[in-house]
Amino acid sequence: MEILPESIKKLINILSYFPSIGPRQATRLAFYLINKGQNEIIGLIKNLEALNKIKICNFCFFPHENQNELCDICQNTERNKSIIMIIEKETDLLSLEKANQFNGRYLIIGEISKKGILEEWQKLRLQNLKSFIQRELNGKAEEIILAFNPDSIGNFTSSIIEKEIRDFSKKITRLARGLPTGGEIEFADDETLKSAIQNRV
Amino acid sequence: MEILPESIKKLINILSYFPSIGPRQATRLAFYLINKGQNEIIGLIKNLEALNKIKICNFCFFPHENQNELCDICQNTERNKSIIMIIEKETDLLSLEKANQFNGRYLIIGEISKKGILEEWQKLRLQNLKSFIQRELNGKAEEIILAFNPDSIGNFTSSIIEKEIRDFSKKITRLARGLPTGGEIEFADDETLKSAIQNRV
Repeated sequence: MEILPESIKKLINILSYFPSIGPRQATRLAFYLINKGQNEIIGLIKNLEALNKIKICNFCFFPHENQNELCDICQNTERNKSIIMIIEKETDLLSLEKANQFNGRYLIIGEISKKGILEEWQKLRLQNLKSFIQRELNGKAEEIILAFNPDSIGNFTSSIIEKEIRDFSKKITRLARGLPTGGEIEFADDETLKSAIQNRV
Repeated sequence: MEILPESIKKLINILSYFPSIGPRQATRLAFYLINKGQNEIIGLIKNLEALNKIKICNFCFFPHENQNELCDICQNTERNKSIIMIIEKETDLLSLEKANQFNGRYLIIGEISKKGILEEWQKLRLQNLKSFIQRELNGKAEEIILAFNPDSIGNFTSSIIEKEIRDFSKKITRLARGLPTGGEIEFADDETLKSAIQNRV
């Protein structure tokens, strides 16, 4: 790609590191921006600059722009701070909130490595939670929900975290497994059917 | 998504207009950037700012950073300026150049609408080509190659352009149709097999 100007090459390089964007899509995105013209690029730059107002919540690690150190969910006194759902990522929080069935707090543990093992900064987030439970909940949360993806990595991570926090909660639960709404029994995999039968209600 | 800070919401909105990026991937990209931290964001901003050096080639409309008004290909005197390949987009040019089989110039006509009809600015690009042919090639190019995607829109666009430029070139050609290398005869569609038989060499 010798004919590409340096600035475009560099932009393609940055974009190709974005999640689920390969070099080919990165190239397409770069040309899209160039063809949109300088005004569109300046608009995007302004938007990126505005991100410097973003803070990360001291409790759950979701981004916010509030004056204090807590996000909208964690500073909402109508939410039950003694029920905590531990999740992997911000987009999981958005989906779970949309379901409108949970009135506790979250803890975002951050992207889980392929091995399912927690990194140092992720252990610090758990440590942060334990300190909170000791300080504000007299050492025991009502319930901690481990809400990880229903796959082997998610299971493994849940087990690791469960061991870590066992003494800090009266109850530790996981999200239910079963048939997804709209799914078909005929095409469900064995594991899903097993859960659906075992956990029938 | 009421819990999302304004600056993130706006960024997601901009990103979701990027080609083949929907709202869901735009959300993931925004959180990726935020999690990467302020340094990464500033790096991206600097890169976007560097794009203001980009100029668009006066002849082929490919971006460049040269002092004069022509891109690297068009200012290369070793390339044959009397053979012109008309293509849809910049990424097509990159792919065609990689094949290393063409030593003429290109004209990027720009993304073709779903109807296959040329817009005003695209007609201006053709007009630009005609003026060049009259001025520098005594009114006739050696060959104009119409290199559009081998589908019905591409065919339709080729026919429209062919009518426009018929009097400006000694020869007008299209890219060959046939079996793609590595493809299997068993799974080739009828149209492809038809071309492969008719154009056998």
